[in-house]
Amino acid sequence: MANPIDPHILIIYGASGDLAQRKLIPAVFDLYRGGYLPEKFALLGASRTDYTDEAFREKVLFENEFMQGNGYDEDQLKAFSELLFYQDLKAYDGVEDAKKLKAKLEDLGEQFETGSNYIFYLSTPPKLYSSIPKALAEVGLNKPENGWSRLVVEKPFGYDEKSAKQLNEELQSVFRENDIYRIDHYLGKETVQNLLVTRFANGFFEPLWNRNYIQSVQITAAETVGVGSRGGYYDESGALRDMIQNHLLQVLAHVAMEPPIRADAYSIRGEKMKLFQSLRAITGEQVAQQVVRAQYDAGDTKDGHVEGYREAEGVPDDSMTETYVAMKFFIDNWRWAGVPFFIRTGKCLPLKVTEVVITFKNPPQALFSGYDDYALKCDNQLIMRIQPDEGMALEFGMKVPGEGFRVKNVDMDFFYRDLTTKDVPESYSRLLLDCMKGDPTLYARGDSVEQAWAFVDPILQAWEKNEAPLARYTAGTWGPEEADRLWDGITGASWRNPAESLIDDKHYTKL
Amino acid sequence: MANPIDPHILIIYGASGDLAQRKLIPAVFDLYRGGYLPEKFALLGASRTDYTDEAFREKVLFENEFMQGNGYDEDQLKAFSELLFYQDLKAYDGVEDAKKLKAKLEDLGEQFETGSNYIFYLSTPPKLYSSIPKALAEVGLNKPENGWSRLVVEKPFGYDEKSAKQLNEELQSVFRENDIYRIDHYLGKETVQNLLVTRFANGFFEPLWNRNYIQSVQITAAETVGVGSRGGYYDESGALRDMIQNHLLQVLAHVAMEPPIRADAYSIRGEKMKLFQSLRAITGEQVAQQVVRAQYDAGDTKDGHVEGYREAEGVPDDSMTETYVAMKFFIDNWRWAGVPFFIRTGKCLPLKVTEVVITFKNPPQALFSGYDDYALKCDNQLIMRIQPDEGMALEFGMKVPGEGFRVKNVDMDFFYRDLTTKDVPESYSRLLLDCMKGDPTLYARGDSVEQAWAFVDPILQAWEKNEAPLARYTAGTWGPEEADRLWDGITGASWRNPAESLIDDKHYTKL
Repeated sequence: MANPIDPHILIIYGASGDLAQRKLIPAVFDLYRGGYLPEKFALLGASRTDYTDEAFREKVLFENEFMQGNGYDEDQLKAFSELLFYQDLKAYDGVEDAKKLKAKLEDLGEQFETGSNYIFYLSTPPKLYSSIPKALAEVGLNKPENGWSRLVVEKPFGYDEKSAKQLNEELQSVFRENDIYRIDHYLGKETVQNLLVTRFANGFFEPLWNRNYIQSVQITAAETVGVGSRGGYYDESGALRDMIQNHLLQVLAHVAMEPPIRADAYSIRGEKMKLFQSLRAITGEQVAQQVVRAQYDAGDTKDGHVEGYREAEGVPDDSMTETYVAMKFFIDNWRWAGVPFFIRTGKCLPLKVTEVVITFKNPPQALFSGYDDYALKCDNQLIMRIQPDEGMALEFGMKVPGEGFRVKNVDMDFFYRDLTTKDVPESYSRLLLDCMKGDPTLYARGDSVEQAWAFVDPILQAWEKNEAPLARYTAGTWGPEEADRLWDGITGASWRNPAESLIDDKHYTKL
Repeated sequence: MANPIDPHILIIYGASGDLAQRKLIPAVFDLYRGGYLPEKFALLGASRTDYTDEAFREKVLFENEFMQGNGYDEDQLKAFSELLFYQDLKAYDGVEDAKKLKAKLEDLGEQFETGSNYIFYLSTPPKLYSSIPKALAEVGLNKPENGWSRLVVEKPFGYDEKSAKQLNEELQSVFRENDIYRIDHYLGKETVQNLLVTRFANGFFEPLWNRNYIQSVQITAAETVGVGSRGGYYDESGALRDMIQNHLLQVLAHVAMEPPIRADAYSIRGEKMKLFQSLRAITGEQVAQQVVRAQYDAGDTKDGHVEGYREAEGVPDDSMTETYVAMKFFIDNWRWAGVPFFIRTGKCLPLKVTEVVITFKNPPQALFSGYDDYALKCDNQLIMRIQPDEGMALEFGMKVPGEGFRVKNVDMDFFYRDLTTKDVPESYSRLLLDCMKGDPTLYARGDSVEQAWAFVDPILQAWEKNEAPLARYTAGTWGPEEADRLWDGITGASWRNPAESLIDDKHYTKL
């Protein structure tokens, strides 16, 4: 299934910005080094700053700290630099600028024989997401003759359901839905994609993956850092918008979706959409019961002492923006009826970690409880760690050596790092490559994004109306105790607070 | 559930023999060192040899090579030796001798305040298994007043169904079935018992353990050694009698039995009996189709060059005794209908290893076959290694890092040796301790033994009548190619020839 990549030009809007230097340019260079780029290829940076081609190359390649120290071959870097060009724009959405850009692209297209194939990557402030495509359309770059044009849009995609809908309408009025690539870098992570393989390539896991055998599912995405100096920016969004509406609902979709008919974009994205449609809405007073929002207070984290969120630069003293969310919800379909799902995310938590924990139901009878109380609590869990130290562990009961039948939990484990032949590719490289191939499997579809907003919107609204309290937690802890109460009534299960190593935590008992 | 052990005397018949010195005396000493013996305890050796108590102690403790070099505390060994006594017998089954023995036991009983509680361990040639209990009965030692009497019988228990039935009748006429302990040291192995815990203490494994999800089950017990100088003895039994009728059918019972109502002897042994009753008989011409017998020819093994079986000392030139058996059979019950089971065992194979391999069915659709042919062959296996290096590995498909959804097999693994707090107890210690407690869970019940013989008898008879060929294999190989044909018609599965390490073999593919 080698997917030959058409010659094309990659245009990065916002090319002098942080994301371009940190992620995009290094990702394209990695593709270049790996031999993945088409033979006929050029990269055009575009932004307001006034650079020459040479100055741009200096900035994003030779002086870019995120390209430094990687031991790159200088000759290779030099050769790559000759594929990079720059176009300054007075206004991103000005028609005059669009015309200048078009002329430059035609010029490069001839020079590099790329024809009229373009990827426009919008690494700009969100307010430009609709006006840039409009400007491109005015000069025909949205649907070039004898070529194709794809649009990559960074997050956040909208601010709520209404704005996401409006953005979709505006984009879809000038680009075809199949040419719009809404990027969510979580979907580029190997371990997120591996969720699908684990589930659908194995005779072993799939039969267990339903309400009959699974007691609960929890997803934790913890960060150790606070908002730092970006409080002003963060205070406009909050954890629900920043992490859950996009990344974690995407992870959820991989964990919970039905088997797709085929492993292609159409089928997989269709199943994700169905999953989002199946989320039972949390509305009105349910928000206070099922969703916990919280802000961190001053405390000591792994990285040192952190001041409280409201003391952070740019954050109002009375800010109600959440830096932590924990929620419980249900999926109303045949597979998951009655199974509680939990998601939590927060800043200033003890570890930087993202993991999915499937807790299986206990066996129908605690056969060995006569030998050991532990047999009653023997919980089987499958832990899929998405970052860092990607891997899987399966916890289950084994016999304690010696008399009788005492049971203790042990685990079997597997780590991606044990693999020998390939580096785990960086998610931006993977996603860019897919876009170059025209494979949108790992990009979010417009209606899915709206549907994900539709799920979180009522929660945001309840919070705006202060219909649910704002809890507090000390920086460096696993969040407010209010979050534990979400598990009330679920026997013997709770949040699994991960330890540094996948297998070194309270659940893992050496016999 | 601490099971206090009554004061008692352990009587070992055949105390000067090989098993007593290699296994029994070291096992009792281990129990002594571990503090498991009752405070009031004595051990009486009995055999034809004329020893004093002191000479017996010298032989089985201080001069016993199997007690040497273990770094035992000399004071402890000395203290233990004072619990050992000896009684010489002219005839094991003589009434005069039984009277002498009784007098000695009464004497010791007073001295050690053990009362009239006895365990008689028959470590003698099988022909004495019925006559010794009879002699004991004649002097009332089978059912002592104000005490109890238990009988431990070593293997082989019978030579076929008829002789096993007769032996049972003779034993049961003088001892109660519940006081008869038929020992099978495989049942004392931690990993064999752990089969029950793995299956019945986990919400994860049990749902998969049936015909819906399991494609096949195979049990391999391989030895590297040949018959050596014991050819004469071995030629009377062969691999089917020596390994399958007892050990491997017991392992099978643990893998395949229904969940017992309770984890006690009554329930577990009842379920085993049901399992043996469910074995579909292999009769007549099915024997040639479903069972492969073979003899090794000269070859090079791990331990050096080995001469062919028929050349071995004590083996007739035209011996038809099998040193290798591979068989395919079915279990006729609801759980296992249609699932093929395979057992094989042999001498002079490449490794000494016993393991159970559960192969799961493929998922209903090879979703990722477009990316990689391997996705079609992705087999999920659970490997439970019983010896050596006890542990479990679960092989399953994971995503190969990089583009698309390529799938390769990897494994998660667990090793008993990673446990920290306890040594894995030697099987004879464990079994003796259970007998002292009066817990027969890990001993074979009389009717089960007969039922196991009933399964192998028709095979033995067909071989005697030469209704099935005797295949040949070269020492140091995995047996005759005829054994591979047992898998004909079972798509994509075959014998899993284990490698030295549980996880280092052909099925394990580094990505």
